[in-house]
Amino acid sequence: MERIHGGDWAAYREAYGTAPLDFSASVSPLGVPDGVQAAIRRAAAEADRYPDPFCRRLRRAIAAHEGVPEAWVLCGSGAADLIWRAVLAAKPGCALVTAPCFGEYEAALESCGCELLRFPLREPFALTEDILWQIDRGLDLLFLCSPNNPTGRTVEPGLLRRIVRRCGESGTRLILDECFADFLDEPELYTAKGLLESALGLLILKAFTKLYGMAGVRLGYALCADTAYLEAMRRAGPPWSVSTLAQEAGLAALEDQYYVNRLRALIRSERPLLAHELEALGLKVIPGEANFLLFQGGTELAARLRERGILIRSCDDFHGLDASWYRVAVRTREDNDRLIAALREMLT
Amino acid sequence: MERIHGGDWAAYREAYGTAPLDFSASVSPLGVPDGVQAAIRRAAAEADRYPDPFCRRLRRAIAAHEGVPEAWVLCGSGAADLIWRAVLAAKPGCALVTAPCFGEYEAALESCGCELLRFPLREPFALTEDILWQIDRGLDLLFLCSPNNPTGRTVEPGLLRRIVRRCGESGTRLILDECFADFLDEPELYTAKGLLESALGLLILKAFTKLYGMAGVRLGYALCADTAYLEAMRRAGPPWSVSTLAQEAGLAALEDQYYVNRLRALIRSERPLLAHELEALGLKVIPGEANFLLFQGGTELAARLRERGILIRSCDDFHGLDASWYRVAVRTREDNDRLIAALREMLT
Repeated sequence: MERIHGGDWAAYREAYGTAPLDFSASVSPLGVPDGVQAAIRRAAAEADRYPDPFCRRLRRAIAAHEGVPEAWVLCGSGAADLIWRAVLAAKPGCALVTAPCFGEYEAALESCGCELLRFPLREPFALTEDILWQIDRGLDLLFLCSPNNPTGRTVEPGLLRRIVRRCGESGTRLILDECFADFLDEPELYTAKGLLESALGLLILKAFTKLYGMAGVRLGYALCADTAYLEAMRRAGPPWSVSTLAQEAGLAALEDQYYVNRLRALIRSERPLLAHELEALGLKVIPGEANFLLFQGGTELAARLRERGILIRSCDDFHGLDASWYRVAVRTREDNDRLIAALREMLT
Repeated sequence: MERIHGGDWAAYREAYGTAPLDFSASVSPLGVPDGVQAAIRRAAAEADRYPDPFCRRLRRAIAAHEGVPEAWVLCGSGAADLIWRAVLAAKPGCALVTAPCFGEYEAALESCGCELLRFPLREPFALTEDILWQIDRGLDLLFLCSPNNPTGRTVEPGLLRRIVRRCGESGTRLILDECFADFLDEPELYTAKGLLESALGLLILKAFTKLYGMAGVRLGYALCADTAYLEAMRRAGPPWSVSTLAQEAGLAALEDQYYVNRLRALIRSERPLLAHELEALGLKVIPGEANFLLFQGGTELAARLRERGILIRSCDDFHGLDASWYRVAVRTREDNDRLIAALREMLT
């Protein structure tokens, strides 16, 4: 697997000399928040010093923001960095992922020689309670993503609680990727944060990438009440993975809840419109709840849109999907209109 | 081992509320180059996009700068990131490091369950040809650092060539850390770059951290003619480890050879002065050739200097050294004078 993921605008720029309209990466269409840009500009002058390897100020701010103890927070160079550290620190013999799911889980697990099991999700890709039967003493680690990438489907809260309990009983570590959870209408209903205290084996992943328009900065964090595991994760990689620039950017981002509210309102209003317009073109749209949509239909849409300066994510490299599936970010009305207009030309 | 390494000015700031004078991290005392700061400030506005996972423009610039093919270059989030990837990609069963050496080699090797052998360096810590006897078919990987951290000693060029040849014969991968090589008076005499083409098992590590005052940005690179190994390293970790900010900073840094020349001239003139002054205080100074010096003497010097607002690196956590050894960066005349004045008060 090439693990390009989408968002490889740089390849487009190399080929065409200009920047594409990028629906392939599920990032904020509102740009880098002004306060974050200002923090990076200020921090540039201090970037001769090593970063704080413990991210002390940033961890305090995240802890206050999330309402958890500081000791439960570990920062990383994006959620992807934390996925790799979580796997290296756990050294699982056998792990389960859903199909489809974010490809980095599999990449990290395969890199450490772990046996990989896949739980197939059937259209429309909601997680079913059959997964409970897969969680037993032989399973060391389970990756779940809610809302799931690339389907946008959440894990139903009652089922999530049962999964957490079952994982506790079987000694299975649960890595729950909530990187897209803040785009839900009611994130507090879906997050497992309230279960952290009683479930030591639960680790939640979050990122600044999507919610604060900071994909190029590299910053994410993990929440877990098992502080020994967090310490093992910190040691399972280089000590300065979070740059000074990222730490200062993160502190500024947490101050800018106006940006987040504006972004969430935009996604909330544009997602159903975009879904409706895709369906009107005869495409099958999965009822996702994140800042992207998964749909099926057409042929070679990604390649044909690319010729028109628009990138979307072909899902041919996701287990459980194929080349007939595509993922698009929800962007601004103007951007979404350009996508729909291009698709309309191609499909009608 | 705590793996703080030095450079933990943030702990000092937490405790005292002000920034210390930091000799514990071997970084440039000339600050972040203006052009690098400007590049970071410009890039801040574009940091909403994912970084180019292949660092295409930066790799081209590094290749031109180093005079090697672009395909021989892999970028990482600091040399430490590349150390971890080199180990994860090689999955060595048995590896050899010198004692003392940079602690990240051991941390990465231990994390992957590798058997770790140590080649003891005897004072004054020059590498001897006895190491050739340790290189055989049972040895999968050898880490060398030239000039070595924390001793500052180089590997004699003739011996280095013999080591490279022996490694080739025995199928031992050689990771040669040249992160401090550009501080040598004649780096071209010591670098193994010319051997890359004929020695596929040789990988050279370099960093922007030290030479360009960019420790907080996180950027390093590896040079190797075995492009399949570089590709395995790229896959042995998250795909976007080098931030957009770091890529732009690196491109700007390579343009600023005036900064590098100024820094090298400063280190060249200050290193012997600082060594002489330390010796005049009765301290034993190892004849290092990098931008730092290793010395022995005094008791609890690091703790006592810390109370005076000066950080130096206690070497008690280096195998082959103990709490009587310290490493100090070579800084500006003014900074070095402050260090010497504080030591003089304590020691005389």
